Amino acid sequence: MPEALSPRDIAASLTEHWSPRVIAELDQSYVKVAKVQGTIGWHSHESEDELFVVLKGCLRIDMEAGPVVLNEGDLFVVPAGTRHNPSAPDECLIMLIERKSTLHTGTVVNEKTRTLAEQLRPIPGNACSREFD
Amino acid sequence: MPEALSPRDIAASLTEHWSPRVIAELDQSYVKVAKVQGTIGWHSHESEDELFVVLKGCLRIDMEAGPVVLNEGDLFVVPAGTRHNPSAPDECLIMLIERKSTLHTGTVVNEKTRTLAEQLRPIPGNACSREFD
Repeated sequence: MPEALSPRDIAASLTEHWSPRVIAELDQSYVKVAKVQGTIGWHSHESEDELFVVLKGCLRIDMEAGPVVLNEGDLFVVPAGTRHNPSAPDECLIMLIERKSTLHTGTVVNEKTRTLAEQLRPIPGNACSREFD
Repeated sequence: MPEALSPRDIAASLTEHWSPRVIAELDQSYVKVAKVQGTIGWHSHESEDELFVVLKGCLRIDMEAGPVVLNEGDLFVVPAGTRHNPSAPDECLIMLIERKSTLHTGTVVNEKTRTLAEQLRPIPGNACSREFD
């Protein structure tokens, strides 16, 4: 039976910051959620756009062209090749859509970098199944 | 200056039902919003997944495998080749992500079918610009 997902509920259940988890596939992309606080560091994805949606809280994305601030429900696409540094002074829940080939922190590797295998780990207790009623 | 978008505010400003409007590009896909009520009719997209997020209200997507019901904030990906028929008894605001090549109602053409040119029309008064402050 098909099931809808609640990205916000799944993101809320995560226990680590800046550790995205895959919740769905969309053609050659993954839909991910993450719980974030603080900053992840400057990086870019040379040939892949990256979509951010804020599910709860507020996210700032610094770029060389200037910062953008996303409040709850807001959406922003970081264009391919654009250096960016997301940050959240307070804990924030986000949804991301990235190509399957996209590396978490681009060509930069730091202590926050997560492999795709880490992002694909199951999320215990969060099948978010909801039967039609 | 980069600007965040509010998909929900843009969708709320639309005046037609089942007439998606493009609000952003994501690689080879478009991010769209729509205001919907009633049903659009059964169709499929043979080789393209289609992502639905409910921004306000409730959407039901009937499929041959069964229906899925999306409440506010919920997400569902209709897999490529899956016949589906979205419906909303009450007015509902949705966000869609579809490949640029995806036809609105697949190979079916009905009175609700919108061309890509119609979906790409500017949305007056909805730049949703929000300067960083």
